[in-house]
Amino acid sequence: MVKNKKTKADEPASSGKLLDELRVPPGPVDLSAYDTRATTGFSGSKEDGKVALDGLGADVSDWQERLYAEGRKGGQRSILLVLQGMDTSGKGGVIRHGAGLMDPQGLRITSFKAPTPAEKRRGFLWRIRQALPGPGIIGIFDRSHYEDVLIARVRNLVAPPVWNRRYEQINDFEAELADSGITLIKCFLHISPEEQKIRLEARLDDATKHWKYNPADIDERELWPDYAEAYQAALENCNGPEAPWYVIPSDRKWYRNWAVTTLLLETMQSLDPQWPTADFDVKAEKARLATT
Amino acid sequence: MVKNKKTKADEPASSGKLLDELRVPPGPVDLSAYDTRATTGFSGSKEDGKVALDGLGADVSDWQERLYAEGRKGGQRSILLVLQGMDTSGKGGVIRHGAGLMDPQGLRITSFKAPTPAEKRRGFLWRIRQALPGPGIIGIFDRSHYEDVLIARVRNLVAPPVWNRRYEQINDFEAELADSGITLIKCFLHISPEEQKIRLEARLDDATKHWKYNPADIDERELWPDYAEAYQAALENCNGPEAPWYVIPSDRKWYRNWAVTTLLLETMQSLDPQWPTADFDVKAEKARLATT
Repeated sequence: MVKNKKTKADEPASSGKLLDELRVPPGPVDLSAYDTRATTGFSGSKEDGKVALDGLGADVSDWQERLYAEGRKGGQRSILLVLQGMDTSGKGGVIRHGAGLMDPQGLRITSFKAPTPAEKRRGFLWRIRQALPGPGIIGIFDRSHYEDVLIARVRNLVAPPVWNRRYEQINDFEAELADSGITLIKCFLHISPEEQKIRLEARLDDATKHWKYNPADIDERELWPDYAEAYQAALENCNGPEAPWYVIPSDRKWYRNWAVTTLLLETMQSLDPQWPTADFDVKAEKARLATT
Repeated sequence: MVKNKKTKADEPASSGKLLDELRVPPGPVDLSAYDTRATTGFSGSKEDGKVALDGLGADVSDWQERLYAEGRKGGQRSILLVLQGMDTSGKGGVIRHGAGLMDPQGLRITSFKAPTPAEKRRGFLWRIRQALPGPGIIGIFDRSHYEDVLIARVRNLVAPPVWNRRYEQINDFEAELADSGITLIKCFLHISPEEQKIRLEARLDDATKHWKYNPADIDERELWPDYAEAYQAALENCNGPEAPWYVIPSDRKWYRNWAVTTLLLETMQSLDPQWPTADFDVKAEKARLATT
Protein backbone atom coordinates (compact mmCIF):
# COMPACT_ATOMS: atom_id res chain seq x y z
CA MET A 1 0.00 0.00 0.00
CA VAL A 2 1.20 3.49 -0.81
CA LYS A 3 1.16 5.46 2.42
CA ASN A 4 -0.18 8.96 2.62
CA LYS A 5 2.76 11.22 3.23
CA LYS A 6 0.62 13.83 4.89
CA THR A 7 0.26 11.84 8.11
CA LYS A 8 1.27 14.20 10.89
CA ALA A 9 3.87 13.25 13.44
CA ASP A 10 1.56 13.95 16.35
CA GLU A 11 -1.04 11.43 15.18
CA PRO A 12 -1.10 8.05 16.88
CA ALA A 13 1.38 5.58 15.41
CA SER A 14 -0.34 3.84 12.51
CA SER A 15 -0.41 0.07 12.07
CA GLY A 16 0.03 0.83 8.39
CA LYS A 17 -3.34 -0.74 7.79
CA LEU A 18 -6.08 1.08 5.96
CA LEU A 19 -8.50 -0.85 8.18
CA ASP A 20 -7.20 1.19 11.12
CA GLU A 21 -7.12 4.46 9.26
CA LEU A 22 -10.70 4.35 8.01
CA ARG A 23 -12.23 2.72 11.09
CA VAL A 24 -14.90 4.84 12.76
CA PRO A 25 -13.84 5.24 16.39
CA PRO A 26 -16.42 4.37 19.06
CA GLY A 27 -18.50 7.26 20.29
CA PRO A 28 -20.43 10.11 18.69
CA VAL A 29 -20.13 10.45 14.93
CA ASP A 30 -20.15 13.72 13.04
CA LEU A 31 -20.15 12.96 9.34
CA SER A 32 -19.47 16.58 8.43
CA ALA A 33 -16.02 16.12 9.96
CA TYR A 34 -15.16 13.51 7.33
CA ASP A 35 -13.77 14.87 4.07
CA THR A 36 -15.55 13.17 1.16
CA ARG A 37 -12.63 13.98 -1.18
CA ALA A 38 -9.89 12.58 1.05
CA THR A 39 -7.53 9.90 -0.24
CA THR A 40 -6.52 8.53 3.15
CA GLY A 41 -3.65 6.05 2.91
CA PHE A 42 -2.94 6.81 -0.73
CA SER A 43 -0.66 9.51 -2.02
CA GLY A 44 -0.84 9.16 -5.79
CA SER A 45 -2.98 10.54 -8.60
CA LYS A 46 -6.17 9.16 -10.10
CA GLU A 47 -4.11 7.29 -12.70
CA ASP A 48 -1.90 5.87 -9.96
CA GLY A 49 -5.03 4.80 -8.11
CA LYS A 50 -6.35 2.84 -11.04
CA VAL A 51 -3.01 1.15 -11.53
CA ALA A 52 -2.85 0.39 -7.81
CA LEU A 53 -6.32 -1.19 -7.91
CA ASP A 54 -5.31 -3.43 -10.82
CA GLY A 55 -2.15 -4.22 -8.89
CA LEU A 56 -4.23 -5.62 -6.03
CA GLY A 57 -5.80 -8.18 -8.39
CA ALA A 58 -3.29 -10.99 -8.00
CA ASP A 59 -3.14 -10.74 -4.20
CA VAL A 60 -6.88 -10.43 -3.78
CA SER A 61 -7.41 -13.41 -6.04
CA ASP A 62 -4.83 -15.53 -4.22
CA TRP A 63 -6.17 -14.79 -0.75
CA GLN A 64 -9.71 -15.31 -1.90
CA GLU A 65 -8.82 -18.75 -3.20
CA ARG A 66 -7.19 -19.66 0.11
CA LEU A 67 -10.29 -18.62 2.01
CA TYR A 68 -12.48 -20.54 -0.43
CA ALA A 69 -10.30 -23.65 -0.13
CA GLU A 70 -10.46 -23.47 3.66
CA GLY A 71 -14.25 -23.30 3.44
CA ARG A 72 -14.37 -26.32 1.17
CA LYS A 73 -12.39 -28.39 3.66
CA GLY A 74 -14.36 -27.77 6.83
CA GLY A 75 -13.42 -24.19 7.68
CA GLN A 76 -16.31 -22.05 8.87
CA ARG A 77 -14.96 -18.56 8.28
CA SER A 78 -16.34 -16.10 5.78
CA ILE A 79 -16.43 -12.36 5.14
CA LEU A 80 -19.41 -10.07 4.76
CA LEU A 81 -18.91 -6.70 3.12
CA VAL A 82 -21.84 -4.37 3.75
CA LEU A 83 -22.11 -1.40 1.39
CA GLN A 84 -24.26 1.55 2.35
CA GLY A 85 -24.44 5.05 0.99
CA MET A 86 -26.69 7.60 -0.66
CA ASP A 87 -27.79 7.09 -4.28
CA THR A 88 -24.86 7.35 -6.73
CA SER A 89 -22.33 6.83 -3.93
CA GLY A 90 -21.03 3.86 -5.88
CA LYS A 91 -22.13 0.63 -4.25
CA GLY A 92 -22.46 -0.93 -7.68
CA GLY A 93 -19.17 0.56 -8.82
CA VAL A 94 -17.28 -0.98 -5.93
CA ILE A 95 -18.72 -4.38 -6.78
CA ARG A 96 -17.98 -4.01 -10.48
CA HIS A 97 -14.42 -2.78 -10.09
CA GLY A 98 -13.35 -4.28 -6.76
CA ALA A 99 -15.26 -7.54 -6.49
CA GLY A 100 -14.74 -7.83 -10.24
CA LEU A 101 -11.09 -8.66 -9.48
CA MET A 102 -12.18 -11.82 -7.70
CA ASP A 103 -13.32 -15.23 -8.79
CA PRO A 104 -17.11 -14.95 -9.01
CA GLN A 105 -17.43 -18.52 -7.68
CA GLY A 106 -16.30 -17.30 -4.27
CA LEU A 107 -18.67 -14.33 -4.13
CA ARG A 108 -22.27 -14.07 -3.05
CA ILE A 109 -23.72 -10.70 -3.93
CA THR A 110 -27.14 -9.61 -2.75
CA SER A 111 -28.84 -6.38 -3.65
CA PHE A 112 -31.62 -5.46 -1.23
CA LYS A 113 -34.58 -3.55 -2.60
CA ALA A 114 -37.66 -2.44 -0.65
CA PRO A 115 -38.91 -5.50 1.24
CA THR A 116 -41.98 -7.30 -0.07
CA PRO A 117 -45.03 -7.68 2.19
CA ALA A 118 -44.10 -11.37 2.71
CA GLU A 119 -40.59 -10.37 3.75
CA LYS A 120 -41.87 -7.72 6.13
CA ARG A 121 -44.07 -10.24 7.89
CA ARG A 122 -41.00 -12.32 8.72
CA GLY A 123 -39.17 -9.51 10.47
CA PHE A 124 -36.52 -7.25 8.96
CA LEU A 125 -33.60 -9.62 9.58
CA TRP A 126 -35.17 -12.69 7.98
CA ARG A 127 -34.19 -11.91 4.40
CA ILE A 128 -30.76 -10.81 5.56
CA ARG A 129 -30.15 -14.22 7.14
CA GLN A 130 -31.13 -15.93 3.89
CA ALA A 131 -28.35 -14.07 2.11
CA LEU A 132 -25.44 -14.73 4.49
CA PRO A 133 -22.27 -16.12 2.92
CA GLY A 134 -21.44 -19.78 3.42
CA PRO A 135 -18.02 -21.03 4.58
CA GLY A 136 -15.14 -19.57 2.59
CA ILE A 137 -17.38 -17.19 0.68
CA ILE A 138 -17.17 -13.41 0.49
CA GLY A 139 -20.68 -12.03 0.83
CA ILE A 140 -21.43 -8.56 -0.44
CA PHE A 141 -24.56 -6.65 0.49
CA ASP A 142 -25.61 -3.77 -1.74
CA ARG A 143 -27.75 -2.10 0.93
CA SER A 144 -28.63 -4.22 3.93
CA HIS A 145 -30.49 -4.41 7.23
CA TYR A 146 -29.30 -0.83 7.80
CA GLU A 147 -32.01 0.38 5.43
CA ASP A 148 -34.38 -0.57 8.25
CA VAL A 149 -32.90 2.21 10.39
CA LEU A 150 -32.25 4.57 7.47
CA ILE A 151 -35.11 4.96 5.00
CA ALA A 152 -37.44 3.34 7.54
CA ARG A 153 -36.55 6.08 10.04
CA VAL A 154 -36.39 9.01 7.62
CA ARG A 155 -39.60 8.04 5.84
CA ASN A 156 -41.48 6.97 8.97
CA LEU A 157 -42.10 3.54 7.45
CA VAL A 158 -42.38 2.23 11.00
CA ALA A 159 -43.09 3.97 14.30
CA PRO A 160 -40.12 5.45 16.21
CA PRO A 161 -40.17 2.80 18.96
CA VAL A 162 -39.86 0.16 16.27
CA TRP A 163 -36.81 1.57 14.49
CA ASN A 164 -35.36 2.56 17.84
CA ARG A 165 -35.39 -1.07 19.00
CA ARG A 166 -33.67 -2.15 15.83
CA TYR A 167 -30.23 -0.80 16.77
CA GLU A 168 -30.02 -3.28 19.60
CA GLN A 169 -31.49 -6.03 17.45
CA ILE A 170 -28.83 -5.32 14.85
CA ASN A 171 -26.10 -5.41 17.48
CA ASP A 172 -27.31 -8.79 18.71
CA PHE A 173 -27.57 -10.09 15.17
CA GLU A 174 -24.09 -8.91 14.21
CA ALA A 175 -22.59 -10.37 17.39
CA GLU A 176 -24.15 -13.68 16.40
CA LEU A 177 -22.60 -13.40 12.93
CA ALA A 178 -19.17 -12.76 14.43
CA ASP A 179 -19.59 -15.79 16.70
CA SER A 180 -20.46 -17.95 13.71
CA GLY A 181 -17.22 -17.03 11.92
CA ILE A 182 -18.33 -14.13 9.75
CA THR A 183 -15.97 -11.16 9.65
CA LEU A 184 -17.95 -8.02 9.01
CA ILE A 185 -16.69 -5.02 7.02
CA LYS A 186 -19.34 -2.30 7.02
CA CYS A 187 -18.56 0.55 4.62
CA PHE A 188 -20.35 3.85 4.42
CA LEU A 189 -19.58 5.32 1.00
CA HIS A 190 -19.49 8.98 1.89
CA ILE A 191 -20.23 11.52 -0.85
CA SER A 192 -21.08 15.19 -0.71
CA PRO A 193 -24.45 16.47 -1.95
CA GLU A 194 -22.56 18.47 -4.58
CA GLU A 195 -20.94 15.33 -5.94
CA GLN A 196 -24.30 13.55 -6.01
CA LYS A 197 -25.72 16.38 -8.07
CA ILE A 198 -22.92 16.02 -10.62
CA ARG A 199 -23.51 12.27 -10.84
CA LEU A 200 -27.28 12.60 -11.23
CA GLU A 201 -26.73 15.19 -13.96
CA ALA A 202 -24.39 12.80 -15.70
CA ARG A 203 -27.07 10.09 -15.63
CA LEU A 204 -29.60 12.47 -17.12
CA ASP A 205 -27.17 13.62 -19.80
CA ASP A 206 -26.30 10.13 -21.03
CA ALA A 207 -29.03 8.02 -22.65
CA THR A 208 -27.11 4.83 -21.82
CA LYS A 209 -27.47 5.73 -18.15
CA HIS A 210 -31.15 6.63 -18.07
CA TRP A 211 -32.04 3.15 -16.83
CA LYS A 212 -30.08 3.91 -13.66
CA TYR A 213 -31.99 7.08 -12.96
CA ASN A 214 -35.07 7.12 -10.78
CA PRO A 215 -37.06 10.32 -10.14
CA ALA A 216 -37.46 9.16 -6.54
CA ASP A 217 -33.69 9.71 -6.14
CA ILE A 218 -34.36 13.45 -6.01
CA ASP A 219 -37.03 13.00 -3.34
CA GLU A 220 -34.44 11.22 -1.20
CA ARG A 221 -31.83 13.84 -2.06
CA GLU A 222 -34.07 16.52 -0.62
CA LEU A 223 -33.95 14.69 2.69
CA TRP A 224 -30.14 14.76 2.81
CA PRO A 225 -29.86 16.20 6.37
CA ASP A 226 -32.32 13.60 7.68
CA TYR A 227 -30.32 10.82 6.08
CA ALA A 228 -27.08 12.21 7.47
CA GLU A 229 -28.65 12.14 10.93
CA ALA A 230 -29.90 8.58 10.44
CA TYR A 231 -26.48 7.44 9.18
CA GLN A 232 -24.80 9.05 12.15
CA ALA A 233 -27.15 7.24 14.51
CA ALA A 234 -26.47 3.91 12.81
CA LEU A 235 -22.71 4.45 12.87
CA GLU A 236 -22.85 5.43 16.53
CA ASN A 237 -25.25 2.79 17.80
CA CYS A 238 -24.00 -0.22 15.85
CA ASN A 239 -20.24 -0.02 15.89
CA GLY A 240 -19.04 -2.76 18.20
CA PRO A 241 -15.51 -4.18 18.04
CA GLU A 242 -16.72 -7.18 16.02
CA ALA A 243 -18.96 -5.12 13.74
CA PRO A 244 -16.88 -2.10 12.75
CA TRP A 245 -17.91 0.72 10.44
CA TYR A 246 -15.55 2.32 7.95
CA VAL A 247 -16.22 5.69 6.35
CA ILE A 248 -14.96 5.61 2.77
CA PRO A 249 -14.38 9.03 1.21
CA SER A 250 -16.22 8.46 -2.06
CA ASP A 251 -16.26 11.64 -4.10
CA ARG A 252 -13.33 10.18 -5.99
CA LYS A 253 -14.50 6.92 -7.53
CA TRP A 254 -10.99 5.56 -8.09
CA TYR A 255 -10.11 6.06 -4.43
CA ARG A 256 -13.35 4.51 -3.22
CA ASN A 257 -12.76 1.38 -5.33
CA TRP A 258 -9.15 1.09 -4.23
CA ALA A 259 -9.99 1.66 -0.56
CA VAL A 260 -12.78 -0.90 -0.25
CA THR A 261 -10.75 -3.49 -2.14
CA THR A 262 -7.81 -2.81 0.15
CA LEU A 263 -10.03 -3.31 3.22
CA LEU A 264 -11.12 -6.66 1.79
CA LEU A 265 -7.53 -7.67 1.09
CA GLU A 266 -6.30 -6.66 4.55
CA THR A 267 -9.18 -8.54 6.13
CA MET A 268 -8.35 -11.71 4.22
CA GLN A 269 -4.69 -11.33 5.15
CA SER A 270 -5.55 -10.94 8.81
CA LEU A 271 -7.67 -14.10 8.69
CA ASP A 272 -4.59 -15.70 7.13
CA PRO A 273 -6.30 -18.79 5.68
CA GLN A 274 -3.88 -21.61 4.87
CA TRP A 275 -4.00 -24.09 2.02
CA PRO A 276 -5.74 -27.18 3.43
CA THR A 277 -3.49 -30.18 3.88
CA ALA A 278 -4.28 -33.37 1.99
CA ASP A 279 -6.91 -35.59 3.62
CA PHE A 280 -5.63 -38.54 1.57
CA ASP A 281 -2.32 -40.35 1.07
CA VAL A 282 -0.57 -38.36 -1.66
CA LYS A 283 1.95 -41.09 -2.51
CA ALA A 284 -0.70 -43.78 -2.69
CA GLU A 285 -2.83 -41.63 -4.96
CA LYS A 286 0.09 -40.92 -7.27
CA ALA A 287 0.73 -44.66 -7.53
CA ARG A 288 -2.94 -45.32 -8.19
CA LEU A 289 -3.13 -42.63 -10.85
CA ALA A 290 -0.02 -43.99 -12.58
CA THR A 291 -1.74 -47.33 -13.21
CA THR A 292 -4.73 -45.76 -14.97
CA MET B 1 -12.61 -13.00 -33.91
CA VAL B 2 -9.46 -14.39 -35.53
CA LYS B 3 -10.59 -16.90 -38.12
CA ASN B 4 -8.95 -20.27 -38.50
CA LYS B 5 -7.08 -20.17 -41.78
CA LYS B 6 -7.37 -23.93 -42.24
CA THR B 7 -11.06 -23.76 -43.18
CA LYS B 8 -11.32 -25.59 -46.46
CA ALA B 9 -12.99 -24.08 -49.47
CA ASP B 10 -15.33 -27.04 -49.84
CA GLU B 11 -16.78 -26.67 -46.37
CA PRO B 12 -20.16 -24.96 -46.04
CA ALA B 13 -19.91 -21.20 -45.98
CA SER B 14 -19.36 -20.14 -42.39
CA SER B 15 -21.39 -17.45 -40.69
CA GLY B 16 -18.13 -16.44 -39.09
CA LYS B 17 -19.64 -17.26 -35.74
CA LEU B 18 -17.99 -19.62 -33.32
CA LEU B 19 -21.51 -20.58 -32.21
CA ASP B 20 -21.99 -22.22 -35.61
CA GLU B 21 -18.57 -23.79 -35.73
CA LEU B 22 -18.78 -25.52 -32.36
CA ARG B 23 -22.47 -26.41 -32.52
CA VAL B 24 -23.11 -30.16 -32.32
CA PRO B 25 -25.19 -31.04 -35.37
CA PRO B 26 -28.42 -32.98 -34.81
CA GLY B 27 -28.10 -36.74 -35.04
CA PRO B 28 -25.72 -39.37 -33.70
CA VAL B 29 -22.70 -38.09 -31.78
CA ASP B 30 -19.28 -39.73 -31.81
CA LEU B 31 -17.08 -37.87 -29.34
CA SER B 32 -13.95 -39.67 -30.55
CA ALA B 33 -14.35 -37.72 -33.79
CA TYR B 34 -13.84 -34.43 -31.92
CA ASP B 35 -10.21 -33.36 -31.48
CA THR B 36 -9.69 -32.29 -27.87
CA ARG B 37 -6.66 -30.18 -28.87
CA ALA B 38 -8.35 -28.28 -31.69
CA THR B 39 -8.41 -24.49 -31.69
CA THR B 40 -11.41 -24.09 -33.96
CA GLY B 41 -11.98 -20.50 -35.00
CA PHE B 42 -8.66 -19.29 -33.62
CA SER B 43 -5.36 -19.27 -35.46
CA GLY B 44 -2.91 -17.82 -32.95
CA SER B 45 -0.65 -19.12 -30.21
CA LYS B 46 -1.35 -19.63 -26.52
CA GLU B 47 -0.06 -16.14 -25.81
CA ASP B 48 -2.28 -14.73 -28.55
CA GLY B 49 -5.20 -16.60 -27.01
CA LYS B 50 -4.70 -15.03 -23.62
CA VAL B 51 -4.42 -11.60 -25.16
CA ALA B 52 -7.55 -12.28 -27.22
CA LEU B 53 -9.47 -13.32 -24.10
CA ASP B 54 -8.47 -10.11 -22.32
CA GLY B 55 -9.44 -8.26 -25.46
CA LEU B 56 -12.99 -9.58 -25.16
CA GLY B 57 -13.35 -7.97 -21.74
CA ALA B 58 -14.66 -4.57 -22.79
CA ASP B 59 -17.20 -5.98 -25.25
CA VAL B 60 -18.39 -8.69 -22.90
CA SER B 61 -18.78 -6.18 -20.12
CA ASP B 62 -20.67 -3.71 -22.33
CA TRP B 63 -23.12 -6.28 -23.69
CA GLN B 64 -23.65 -7.74 -20.26
CA GLU B 65 -24.62 -4.33 -18.93
CA ARG B 66 -27.09 -3.83 -21.76
CA LEU B 67 -28.71 -7.18 -21.02
CA TYR B 68 -28.79 -6.37 -17.31
CA ALA B 69 -30.32 -2.94 -17.97
CA GLU B 70 -33.00 -4.49 -20.17
CA GLY B 71 -33.84 -6.91 -17.35
CA ARG B 72 -34.12 -4.09 -14.86
CA LYS B 73 -36.63 -2.28 -17.04
CA GLY B 74 -39.13 -5.04 -17.74
CA GLY B 75 -37.21 -7.25 -20.18
CA GLN B 76 -37.57 -10.98 -19.55
CA ARG B 77 -34.56 -12.34 -21.38
CA SER B 78 -31.61 -14.04 -19.76
CA ILE B 79 -28.83 -16.49 -20.63
CA LEU B 80 -28.00 -19.81 -19.05
CA LEU B 81 -24.54 -21.26 -19.63
CA VAL B 82 -24.40 -24.94 -18.69
CA LEU B 83 -20.90 -26.33 -18.15
CA GLN B 84 -20.38 -30.08 -18.20
CA GLY B 85 -17.24 -32.16 -18.49
CA MET B 86 -15.09 -34.75 -16.78
CA ASP B 87 -13.13 -33.82 -13.64
CA THR B 88 -10.35 -31.29 -14.40
CA SER B 89 -11.96 -30.34 -17.73
CA GLY B 90 -12.04 -26.77 -16.46
CA LYS B 91 -15.57 -25.79 -15.50
CA GLY B 92 -14.16 -23.71 -12.66
CA GLY B 93 -11.43 -22.29 -14.88
CA VAL B 94 -13.95 -21.04 -17.42
CA ILE B 95 -15.88 -19.29 -14.69
CA ARG B 96 -12.77 -17.76 -13.15
CA HIS B 97 -11.24 -16.53 -16.39
CA GLY B 98 -14.28 -16.00 -18.62
CA ALA B 99 -17.06 -15.02 -16.25
CA GLY B 100 -14.38 -13.17 -14.29
CA LEU B 101 -14.39 -10.57 -17.09
CA MET B 102 -17.97 -9.68 -16.25
CA ASP B 103 -19.68 -7.65 -13.57
CA PRO B 104 -20.44 -10.16 -10.82
CA GLN B 105 -23.73 -8.35 -10.12
CA GLY B 106 -25.11 -9.66 -13.39
CA LEU B 107 -24.03 -13.27 -12.80
CA ARG B 108 -25.69 -16.08 -10.93
CA ILE B 109 -23.37 -19.04 -10.54
CA THR B 110 -24.52 -22.35 -9.15
CA SER B 111 -22.33 -25.35 -8.53
CA PHE B 112 -24.33 -28.57 -8.28
CA LYS B 113 -23.00 -31.28 -6.00
CA ALA B 114 -24.60 -34.65 -5.31
CA PRO B 115 -28.25 -33.97 -4.45
CA THR B 116 -29.31 -34.18 -0.82
CA PRO B 117 -32.09 -36.60 0.18
CA ALA B 118 -34.48 -33.65 0.51
CA GLU B 119 -33.60 -32.50 -3.02
CA LYS B 120 -34.04 -35.99 -4.43
CA ARG B 121 -37.53 -36.23 -3.01
CA ARG B 122 -38.54 -33.15 -5.00
CA GLY B 123 -37.52 -34.57 -8.36
CA PHE B 124 -34.24 -33.96 -10.15
CA LEU B 125 -35.33 -30.71 -11.80
CA TRP B 126 -36.54 -28.98 -8.65
CA ARG B 127 -33.18 -27.66 -7.50
CA ILE B 128 -32.34 -26.67 -11.06
CA ARG B 129 -35.44 -24.50 -11.25
CA GLN B 130 -34.43 -22.78 -8.00
CA ALA B 131 -31.18 -21.69 -9.61
CA LEU B 132 -32.48 -20.26 -12.90
CA PRO B 133 -31.28 -16.75 -13.77
CA GLY B 134 -33.72 -13.87 -13.39
CA PRO B 135 -34.33 -11.24 -16.09
CA GLY B 136 -31.15 -9.75 -17.52
CA ILE B 137 -28.92 -12.15 -15.60
CA ILE B 138 -26.35 -14.59 -16.96
CA GLY B 139 -26.75 -17.86 -15.10
CA ILE B 140 -23.87 -20.30 -15.03
CA PHE B 141 -24.27 -23.92 -13.99
CA ASP B 142 -21.14 -25.79 -12.90
CA ARG B 143 -22.66 -29.22 -13.55
CA SER B 144 -26.42 -29.37 -13.96
CA HIS B 145 -29.46 -31.56 -14.51
CA TYR B 146 -27.27 -33.50 -16.95
CA GLU B 147 -25.59 -35.20 -14.02
CA ASP B 148 -28.90 -37.01 -13.65
CA VAL B 149 -28.30 -38.76 -16.96
CA LEU B 150 -24.51 -38.98 -16.53
CA ILE B 151 -23.30 -40.18 -13.14
CA ALA B 152 -26.85 -41.40 -12.38
CA ARG B 153 -26.67 -43.61 -15.48
CA VAL B 154 -23.05 -44.71 -15.18
CA ARG B 155 -23.30 -45.44 -11.46
CA ASN B 156 -26.79 -46.95 -11.58
CA LEU B 157 -28.01 -44.43 -9.03
CA VAL B 158 -31.48 -44.94 -10.46
CA ALA B 159 -32.96 -47.76 -12.52
CA PRO B 160 -32.56 -47.59 -16.33
CA PRO B 161 -36.23 -46.75 -16.99
CA VAL B 162 -35.85 -43.77 -14.69
CA TRP B 163 -32.79 -42.22 -16.35
CA ASN B 164 -34.17 -43.16 -19.73
CA ARG B 165 -37.29 -41.09 -19.14
CA ARG B 166 -35.18 -38.13 -18.11
CA TYR B 167 -34.01 -37.26 -21.63
CA GLU B 168 -37.56 -36.39 -22.59
CA GLN B 169 -38.14 -34.64 -19.28
CA ILE B 170 -35.04 -32.54 -19.90
CA ASN B 171 -36.22 -31.70 -23.41
CA ASP B 172 -39.58 -30.55 -22.08
CA PHE B 173 -37.89 -28.55 -19.35
CA GLU B 174 -35.46 -26.86 -21.70
CA ALA B 175 -38.25 -26.03 -24.16
CA GLU B 176 -40.04 -24.36 -21.28
CA LEU B 177 -36.92 -22.36 -20.44
CA ALA B 178 -36.61 -21.19 -24.02
CA ASP B 179 -40.27 -20.14 -24.02
CA SER B 180 -39.71 -18.13 -20.86
CA GLY B 181 -36.90 -16.12 -22.45
CA ILE B 182 -33.82 -18.06 -21.38
CA THR B 183 -31.21 -18.61 -24.08
CA LEU B 184 -29.35 -21.82 -23.37
CA ILE B 185 -25.66 -22.42 -24.14
CA LYS B 186 -24.73 -25.96 -23.18
CA CYS B 187 -20.99 -26.61 -23.32
CA PHE B 188 -19.30 -29.95 -23.06
CA LEU B 189 -15.67 -29.29 -22.10
CA HIS B 190 -14.00 -32.09 -23.99
CA ILE B 191 -10.64 -33.34 -22.71
CA SER B 192 -8.68 -36.50 -23.46
CA PRO B 193 -7.96 -39.06 -20.73
CA GLU B 194 -4.25 -38.34 -21.23
CA GLU B 195 -4.79 -34.66 -20.49
CA GLN B 196 -6.83 -35.51 -17.41
CA LYS B 197 -3.96 -37.65 -16.14
CA ILE B 198 -1.54 -34.74 -16.51
CA ARG B 199 -3.91 -32.44 -14.64
CA LEU B 200 -4.53 -34.88 -11.80
CA GLU B 201 -0.77 -35.39 -11.48
CA ALA B 202 -0.33 -31.64 -11.28
CA ARG B 203 -2.86 -31.47 -8.45
CA LEU B 204 -1.03 -34.19 -6.56
CA ASP B 205 2.35 -32.52 -7.12
CA ASP B 206 1.28 -29.13 -5.78
CA ALA B 207 0.34 -28.81 -2.10
CA THR B 208 -1.70 -25.68 -2.86
CA LYS B 209 -3.90 -27.81 -5.12
CA HIS B 210 -4.45 -30.77 -2.83
CA TRP B 211 -7.80 -29.36 -1.71
CA LYS B 212 -9.05 -29.75 -5.27
CA TYR B 213 -8.12 -33.42 -5.40
CA ASN B 214 -10.57 -36.13 -4.51
CA PRO B 215 -9.58 -39.82 -4.57
CA ALA B 216 -13.03 -40.53 -6.04
CA ASP B 217 -11.87 -38.69 -9.18
CA ILE B 218 -9.82 -41.75 -10.09
CA ASP B 219 -12.80 -44.04 -9.60
CA GLU B 220 -14.71 -41.94 -12.11
CA ARG B 221 -11.69 -41.81 -14.40
CA GLU B 222 -11.70 -45.59 -14.60
CA LEU B 223 -15.21 -45.42 -16.01
CA TRP B 224 -14.15 -43.11 -18.86
CA PRO B 225 -15.74 -45.19 -21.68
CA ASP B 226 -19.02 -45.39 -19.77
CA TYR B 227 -19.04 -41.63 -19.29
CA ALA B 228 -18.22 -41.06 -22.94
CA GLU B 229 -21.23 -43.19 -23.84
CA ALA B 230 -23.47 -41.34 -21.38
CA TYR B 231 -22.28 -37.96 -22.73
CA GLN B 232 -22.92 -39.07 -26.27
CA ALA B 233 -26.45 -40.13 -25.34
CA ALA B 234 -27.11 -36.78 -23.65
CA LEU B 235 -25.72 -34.82 -26.60
CA GLU B 236 -27.80 -36.88 -29.01
CA ASN B 237 -31.07 -36.99 -27.10
CA CYS B 238 -31.17 -33.43 -25.78
CA ASN B 239 -29.98 -31.23 -28.60
CA GLY B 240 -33.03 -29.38 -29.88
CA PRO B 241 -32.77 -26.13 -31.85
CA GLU B 242 -33.56 -24.10 -28.72
CA ALA B 243 -31.27 -26.13 -26.46
CA PRO B 244 -28.05 -26.58 -28.43
CA TRP B 245 -24.91 -28.36 -27.31
CA TYR B 246 -21.41 -27.12 -28.09
CA VAL B 247 -18.34 -29.32 -27.85
CA ILE B 248 -15.44 -27.21 -26.59
CA PRO B 249 -12.00 -28.68 -27.29
CA SER B 250 -10.51 -28.29 -23.81
CA ASP B 251 -7.05 -29.81 -23.70
CA ARG B 252 -5.74 -26.27 -24.17
CA LYS B 253 -7.02 -24.21 -21.26
CA TRP B 254 -6.47 -20.88 -22.99
CA TYR B 255 -8.52 -21.96 -25.98
CA ARG B 256 -11.31 -23.33 -23.80
CA ASN B 257 -11.58 -20.05 -21.89
CA TRP B 258 -11.52 -17.97 -25.05
CA ALA B 259 -14.04 -20.19 -26.82
CA VAL B 260 -16.68 -20.26 -24.09
CA THR B 261 -16.35 -16.53 -23.52
CA THR B 262 -16.73 -15.96 -27.25
CA LEU B 263 -19.89 -18.08 -27.30
CA LEU B 264 -21.28 -15.93 -24.50
CA LEU B 265 -20.37 -12.73 -26.31
CA GLU B 266 -21.88 -13.88 -29.61
CA THR B 267 -25.05 -14.93 -27.81
CA MET B 268 -25.40 -11.54 -26.15
CA GLN B 269 -24.77 -9.83 -29.49
CA SER B 270 -27.43 -11.94 -31.19
CA LEU B 271 -29.93 -11.02 -28.47
CA ASP B 272 -28.92 -7.42 -29.19
CA PRO B 273 -30.31 -5.84 -26.02
CA GLN B 274 -30.78 -2.07 -26.30
CA TRP B 275 -30.31 0.57 -23.63
CA PRO B 276 -33.77 1.15 -22.14
CA THR B 277 -35.33 4.49 -22.98
CA ALA B 278 -36.20 6.86 -20.16
CA ASP B 279 -39.54 6.19 -18.46
CA PHE B 280 -39.53 9.77 -17.13
CA ASP B 281 -39.34 13.26 -18.58
CA VAL B 282 -35.61 13.95 -18.91
CA LYS B 283 -35.98 17.71 -19.28
CA ALA B 284 -38.31 18.02 -16.30
CA GLU B 285 -35.94 15.96 -14.16
CA LYS B 286 -32.98 18.13 -15.14
CA ALA B 287 -34.94 21.20 -14.14
CA ARG B 288 -35.96 19.60 -10.86
CA LEU B 289 -32.41 18.54 -10.08
CA ALA B 290 -31.11 22.04 -10.84
CA THR B 291 -33.23 23.50 -8.04
CA THR B 292 -31.86 21.16 -5.36
